[in-house]
Order: sequence, then C-alpha cells, then structure tokens
Amino acid sequence: MASETSASVGETLKIGSHTFRSRLIVGTGKYTSFELMQQCLEASAAEVITVAVRRERLVDAEGRNILDFIDLDRYTILPNTAGCFTAEDAVRVARLGREILSGLENPGADWVKLEVLGDTKTLLPDPVATLEATRQLVEDGFHVLCYTSDDPITARRLKDAGAASVMPAGSPIGSGQGILNRNNIRICLEYLKEDDPDYPVIVDAGVGTASDVAQAMELGCDGVLLNTGIAGADDPLLMADAMRHACLAGHLAWKAGRIPKKLYATASSPDTGVVAPRG
Amino acid sequence: MASETSASVGETLKIGSHTFRSRLIVGTGKYTSFELMQQCLEASAAEVITVAVRRERLVDAEGRNILDFIDLDRYTILPNTAGCFTAEDAVRVARLGREILSGLENPGADWVKLEVLGDTKTLLPDPVATLEATRQLVEDGFHVLCYTSDDPITARRLKDAGAASVMPAGSPIGSGQGILNRNNIRICLEYLKEDDPDYPVIVDAGVGTASDVAQAMELGCDGVLLNTGIAGADDPLLMADAMRHACLAGHLAWKAGRIPKKLYATASSPDTGVVAPRG
Amino acid sequence: MASETSASVGETLKIGSHTFRSRLIVGTGKYTSFELMQQCLEASAAEVITVAVRRERLVDAEGRNILDFIDLDRYTILPNTAGCFTAEDAVRVARLGREILSGLENPGADWVKLEVLGDTKTLLPDPVATLEATRQLVEDGFHVLCYTSDDPITARRLKDAGAASVMPAGSPIGSGQGILNRNNIRICLEYLKEDDPDYPVIVDAGVGTASDVAQAMELGCDGVLLNTGIAGADDPLLMADAMRHACLAGHLAWKAGRIPKKLYATASSPDTGVVAPRG
Amino acid sequence: MASETSASVGETLKIGSHTFRSRLIVGTGKYTSFELMQQCLEASAAEVITVAVRRERLVDAEGRNILDFIDLDRYTILPNTAGCFTAEDAVRVARLGREILSGLENPGADWVKLEVLGDTKTLLPDPVATLEATRQLVEDGFHVLCYTSDDPITARRLKDAGAASVMPAGSPIGSGQGILNRNNIRICLEYLKEDDPDYPVIVDAGVGTASDVAQAMELGCDGVLLNTGIAGADDPLLMADAMRHACLAGHLAWKAGRIPKKLYATASSPDTGVVAPRG
Repeated sequence: MASETSASVGETLKIGSHTFRSRLIVGTGKYTSFELMQQCLEASAAEVITVAVRRERLVDAEGRNILDFIDLDRYTILPNTAGCFTAEDAVRVARLGREILSGLENPGADWVKLEVLGDTKTLLPDPVATLEATRQLVEDGFHVLCYTSDDPITARRLKDAGAASVMPAGSPIGSGQGILNRNNIRICLEYLKEDDPDYPVIVDAGVGTASDVAQAMELGCDGVLLNTGIAGADDPLLMADAMRHACLAGHLAWKAGRIPKKLYATASSPDTGVVAPRG
Repeated sequence: MASETSASVGETLKIGSHTFRSRLIVGTGKYTSFELMQQCLEASAAEVITVAVRRERLVDAEGRNILDFIDLDRYTILPNTAGCFTAEDAVRVARLGREILSGLENPGADWVKLEVLGDTKTLLPDPVATLEATRQLVEDGFHVLCYTSDDPITARRLKDAGAASVMPAGSPIGSGQGILNRNNIRICLEYLKEDDPDYPVIVDAGVGTASDVAQAMELGCDGVLLNTGIAGADDPLLMADAMRHACLAGHLAWKAGRIPKKLYATASSPDTGVVAPRG
Repeated sequence: MASETSASVGETLKIGSHTFRSRLIVGTGKYTSFELMQQCLEASAAEVITVAVRRERLVDAEGRNILDFIDLDRYTILPNTAGCFTAEDAVRVARLGREILSGLENPGADWVKLEVLGDTKTLLPDPVATLEATRQLVEDGFHVLCYTSDDPITARRLKDAGAASVMPAGSPIGSGQGILNRNNIRICLEYLKEDDPDYPVIVDAGVGTASDVAQAMELGCDGVLLNTGIAGADDPLLMADAMRHACLAGHLAWKAGRIPKKLYATASSPDTGVVAPRG
Repeated sequence: MASETSASVGETLKIGSHTFRSRLIVGTGKYTSFELMQQCLEASAAEVITVAVRRERLVDAEGRNILDFIDLDRYTILPNTAGCFTAEDAVRVARLGREILSGLENPGADWVKLEVLGDTKTLLPDPVATLEATRQLVEDGFHVLCYTSDDPITARRLKDAGAASVMPAGSPIGSGQGILNRNNIRICLEYLKEDDPDYPVIVDAGVGTASDVAQAMELGCDGVLLNTGIAGADDPLLMADAMRHACLAGHLAWKAGRIPKKLYATASSPDTGVVAPRG
C-alpha cells in the first residue's frame, strides 16, 4: 500500500498507541466461510481487524475459533463488544478480549471497540450506557474506540470521558444506507478536532457501497469501519477490493480540496440566478 | 493498472474500435501549466485524453500547442468540439480534429467527442443540434461519442442515430454537483443497454469529487469523463489519484453487487416498520 | 379561496388570455368513478382541469363522455394530447380539442396542453417532436402549454417557439418521485423568467405527495399540474385537499422568503466549521 | 380551522390533558416587534404558543413582559426551558413557568417543553441531562414534552421515563435544514407508537420552510413546533400562513396514503429496470 500512491506516503492513521497506513477497518462476521473471510481481509488491505469476543461469537457451531483463521502476525485485532446491551456486560467482554489477545501476544490487547447496544432489533447504540462503560474502561487502562450515534453532544461527552476515538454511525448497523446525516458528522468533526486536529474520528456502521466510504472520508473522517457491506455483497471479494480503493479515493479527495458546487460553472454560487421572491 | 487488482483483470472498456483497461477519461483544460497537466494525466492512469481542437483552444497565448505536451505514443487522443454552438461548427471542428490526429498518426483520428452547446453561460448541450451533428458525423465515418443531457429519450435518439457512445451529463459542466438525477441515468442505462449490454454509457460533466465518480460507476455506467474536478482542485495531482481510485472502486462495487438498503438490518425493506396512516 | 388568506389576495396566475386564483391544475384520469373525480376536482379548488381529448380517452367503456361529468360553467378545461407519440398526431388531437370545447363554449378552446411522448413505457416527452408541434400549434393560433423534460435548453427553445407556458416534469409521469433535479428547474426558471418575470412555469408530472407540490412552488414555479398523485392515493379526496393546501403553502413560503440553511444557527454558512483539508 | 376542511373534522391532537385541532406549535422569539409576533401567531392558527420562561427572556430591554402581548384566553402557553444547560437549571425554570402560568390561570401551567442544551454554539440537546430532568419533572407532576435529538434509543428512554411527548429535532435549532435524517424519525415513530399509536411525536427544531413541515407530517408525526422559520423569514406573516397550510397539507397527505415511488409509472419498483451487475 505504501507504494500504491506517492501522494499518501508518510501519512498515517494514529489511534492510541497504534499507527497504520490503511484507514479501513473491517469486521469478521457474516462470512459464509472462514476461507472467504481470509481472502476478503487480504483484499481490503486492512491492517486492523475487529472481532467479537463474546465467547458464543468467537467460536462457531463446529467449535472452531475465528482467531485461528486470522494471521495474528499480520493483523492487529480490535476486539469488540458486539452483543452487549449493558455497560457491565460490555466491560466484562472487553476484559475478556484483553485477556485473550494478551495470551496471543497480539498488539490489540490494549484497546477495544466498545459497543453497548440499546436494542436487538435496530442495533442502535445506547448513549448513556456507552458513556458509563467508556469511563470504566478508560479507568481500567483501555484505549477505547466508541461506537456511537452521530449525535455531536454524545460524541463530545465520549471524548471528554477519555475515548481514544469516537466512531459515529453513518446509519444503523447493516442498513446499507451510508451516511444519512452529513450535517451531524460535520459537527462531530468540528467538535472533536477543535484544538486537536489529529483526534481520530471513524465512521462505523451503515456503509453499503464504495461511494459511502468515499463520502465519509471526503468529510474529513480519519477512517471507516465496516463489515456487512463486504460480507453481505453478492461477491464479497470484489467488494473488499472496491472498499479499499474507495477509502483511498475519499481520503485523497479530501486532502486534494474539491471544487465548489455551483448551479453552473459560471454561476458565482449554488444559488446564483435563482429567481428571487417578488413578495 | 492491470496488476492493480486481480479482480479487474481481463475486463475492458470498448468504444468503437478502441479497447481500454482504464474507465476514466480526462480532459486537458484549465490547468495552470502544461507540466501540471502532464503529471495529472499520468496520476489519473487514463488511457484516453480529450482535447479541444478548435484552433484557438489548441494553441495557448504563447503559441504553444497542447498536443506537444501530451505523449502521443502513450495516450489515445479523443478530440472534442468544445466551444461549438451549431451543428455546422461542430462538424467542421470534428473534421479538423481528424485531420490533425491523422497527421500525428494517433489512433484518436477516427472518433470524436461531440459537444454542441446551447448556451455560453451554462454550457448545457443543445439536443436538436447534437442529434443533427451526430447524424452528419456518423455518415462521415466517425465514431461519435455524444455529450448530452441526462434525458433518456434524447439518449436513445442519439444511439439510434449511430452514436458509438452516449455520454449523459451528471450536472452542468464545471458545476461540481455530481449526479443530480440518478433516476434519469438509470433509465438511460436501461434504454441504451437493452439487448445491447456492452453499449458504452459514460457520465460526462458535473463530477466534483471522488464519490461522484464512484456513484456513476455504481449505477452501472461504463466510464466517467471529467476535467474541472481535477484541474480545479486545490491540489490537482492528489485529486487525479483520487479519481483513479474512485473509478476502480465504483466499478468493482457495481460488479460486486451491493447489499440492499434497509431502515435497519433486521427490517425487511427500507420502509419496514414505518407507521402506517390511520386514515 | 380568495378569502382563504389575505396575503394572497390580488395575486393571480396568468397564462395566455386566462387568469386564475388557484395555482393547481389537476387531471381527470385514473379515477375509479366519475363521482369520485368530481369530488376531488372540487376538493382541489382547481379552476383548470386538464382532459385527454383523444376520442378513446374521452369516452369510457360504457360510452359515457367525461366532459358530461365536469361542470363546464365552473372549470376552464385544458385539453391535452395525452397518448400522442408524433407531432402530427398531437396537432390533430389539439385541433379536435379546440373543436369540442368551442362547441361547448368553454373558454379552454383557445389553449392546449401539448404532450408528445417518446415512449409508451416511461411516458417521457420527445423534445424534437414537442418543439415541432409547438411551432405548428402556435402558428395555428393556440396558446400552447408544453409538457417537457427539465432540460433548460429545450425549455428555452419552446419559449422561443412561442409557448404560452413551459411545463417541465419533476420526474416521470406517475412515478411519484417529486422534483428529482432542482438544479435544472432553477436554471429553467432563470432562463424563462429573465426579462420576463411573469412568464408562467408550471411543474407537470412526477408529483407524489404534498411536500412535492410545496417544493415546486418554493423554487418559484407559478403552478403545479398533477393527476396520479391524487387519483392514485389510497384516499384521493383527502389527497386533493392536501394538494390544495400544499400549493398555497409553497407559494406563500416562496413569497415570504425563507431563512438560509446553516450547519447550525450561529454558523455563518452551511459549511462553517467544517474541518478543512490539511493537505 | 375546524370548518377549513371537512376531512379533518373530528380529529385532534392530544398531549397530556390537552386537546387541540391545530398541529402546529409556534414560538415567540426573535420577532422584531411584539405586534408582528401577535399577527404571526394569529396567521399560524396555532393554539399552543411556547414561551421561554427564564426571567431574562420573559422580559425585554424595556421591561415589557412578553406574556402581556399574548392573548391568554385564546392560547395555551407551553412554557419552555430555553437557555438551560443543566438538569437542575431546567427543573428550576420549569417550576418557575408553572408558578407564572398558575398565577395567570392559563391551562399551560401543568406542562413544559423541556430543553436541556449541551452547547451554546449549536443548541443541540444534552441526552443525559434531558433524561435526568425528565425523570424529576415527571415525578413533580409535569406533563413533559422533551426536545431531543433524532436518536431513537434516547427517544425511547424519554418515553419510558414518562415523557408526555417526545420531540425530536429535524436538524439543529435555527439551522433551517429541515429533516436531515428521515430514517431516524421513522424509527422514532416505530418505537414510540408501537402498541401506543396515539402517543404524540412532534418534530421540534430545524424547520426552514413550508415543505419541511409537510415532510414531517407526511412521515406520520403528530405535529411540528417551530419558531425561527417564521420569525426569521423576510416576511414572517406570509410565512406563518405558509406554515399553517403546510401542516394541514402534510397531515392530510399522510392520512390519504401516497402513491408509491417508481423509476417510471409502469415500473414495478423504484429500481425496476436498473441494469444488473454482470459480475
């Protein structure tokens, strides 16, 4: 990847004590086989792989542990608390993840993707419980990456509580709707990066296709985390490749500084020439 | 590029007698220097470069001819009739382009990007004059690539008149608004590819940033033609790189078959669960 | 209606030799009964009713003529050429309409809503044939209201050809998608009202619900013409009432001059505070 | 109003112990004069008027109390806690409002519009403090109408805490952006009306123009609360009239049941005919 484009050389994503060249973080759920998962992880060029560490999610029906199918020398694992609906449960699962990854000597032992969900139906995050769990996990020494709604006030509260990264949802998990409220993501970025431009903001959830990833990056986000968009595509391997290119494309476009939008090229603004009210 | 992703190996864009691996066509106008233009052409990985061949556009204030700054062994030139406002003028300029490129032994001598504009202010295409010029140029042996509005009926008339490719505008030239009416692009694709799935449909004009390119490709378009989006960016070189990745990303995503959009993941449709009228 | 709101008193819609207080024009097709149609016409408060005058559309399966079910002393009939796919056919049907309405002494005898369609599947207008038919009908003394796409160049050509009103489609007939390309409607308004602010521009087709009507009027359009949005609703009578209020709402809002859009109230523009590229 | 349309006779908005025919609630801030405010309240046909009851907001620079300029026999006052940034402060101000309105014998003494803001810059609500204040005020006997973000989980927590109405923001206060995330409003409606279809959900904040109000109502919301959209318009009186019609239009359209959206009328779905991936 470093050689892929000279323009991106030397620029990295930093979260807590970790540094990466890729800005795409991918999940491991919903694949039809571990082999397909392996190929998609590779095609995505991700360096961080998020894994649900609740025991019933870690091990499949045949007793196989998903971690045995991921190259732990190559990838940094980001343990997540998917399936937790209370702060207590999430904290417990986070600790379990730390224990497992420490035993495996993977660098992911010191961080966690915190999910505390409000609902089994929509999988939307619970703001109060997420804030509570963040406080406990920060105190416990974790670098906490918080999955949250796109609400800017909650985002700021999480950063104030010590989150290493705030990860607003573009839209509900698995909905494929992309970023539904760019206004909120913009305000999140404004809040979280004020006086701290390198603070990592990562869009997590809702990504359906390549242009969704590009749009997230074009807003100035530092990365995108996704799973269903790849795993649920008709051809997950092609989509993993698409997402890799889209993440680069959006990040480069943001750095490049796009042309302004206008009604037409010679108009001075998007609204130039619009018929004014006669009132 | 061929080695860039194994997934895209073996698939090419065919227009008239030409075949390309890249699906991005870029213009040559509005750059601050020929040197920057050269670098951006290279960064875009485009194989087709469109050049305005009206004499006053071909030669700059210092008498330098833009074609002397483009590697004619490397790129296929797509001569265009920018600056023409009547069918007659466009036909004349198209013939001039053929003459010039024949003299230079560039394979672009047999085709033309036809622009017949209705207006100097908006640079929107004139449907009647475009249709008329298409007929004349087809009769004259050209492979005609028609810049047109997104109107599906006009698109079909142009194909019926023998156009080698129909190139609907996403939005006005240089407006940076991307694809304003996906519904029309979808109907254009449906019309133009019915019984002829390989007929090339290329979005031409309006592209502002990387995600616009990705969206065009995700709809199933065969390519994207753009100029201002790169040349007018704060850093055109970075944007050229962004556009290259975005075009790949969108095409791969289209081939991969995206997940459906839903209100939330467990909803059966985008509207599931919406409160029904009580009326 | 004149007493409905003091604010709107004294302001009228003028098209050709006609003047109306209501800015909503409604169709007569697709109703499950003539009685329901009558009630909906009344609920809409429309003063202009458009009727397809091809003979097979004028008379139903039981031989009943739709004009016998419309109060011709109350409504001005706008005959339309629905179902015509060539200029010749449309001109013929327009003359038929004039003949019928002259016989009935309805003021609608001197005008016509011109529809020349390109396709039975999408019912999109044919720009070339529409232009041709407009020229013939204008020469023949008609006030011609032209159904057309939202292409601004075509819109201007139609006005130049003598159209009494240009009526761009918001989206395809019966699609219920509302206004898909506000940019184009804005440019149409700019073109058509330049030096002629009272020239009537009416959105015709695609309207699905009340907010679609309001949006058309908020752009500065002079009226909205619709049929399926009412006739196809679950409760057409309620929807007719909704459309009446929406048309007033949108027109009043346009006259009132709306507040600007901002990222948040204290931001100086919609993009204030957005994180700037660091490139 | 009751006579305005026969269709709406007999249907009312119920919140706590209150019942109204109008579904539009308007504010009293930002008017250039009390006289203009009075006229706009009347033109809006609102029956509920919300007033900020912090002392410094209640009384203007000349010592005039806004309540002296509102007909308390005609309107039900909805006291609000604008300007409060903690639960404690909001509870205090809510009690102040009750005291004032009790003294004036206005029926609004028993309810409150709770605003606990997270930030002076964006005026976005603080979810945790809003939840806390709701609990206290419910215990204190108030009917609490909660201004909140569009986050469905927070919305449900507020209802569970005893809120008489949940009022999600369409977009930030005074931003004029309308409803930015219809998906979230839909999920809020689904959550809040499940097994309780009459539970009142009111869009509060962000409304810029008439079509924004119509869209809120078309989603199935029970009402809209707005202030800046009217008070900040170039002609507030015309806009008040527009908003009145828009609220009726949107509510009627929702009851009427709109036609589905399609690519074109004869397509079987919005995506019919779209070119399928060839992958």
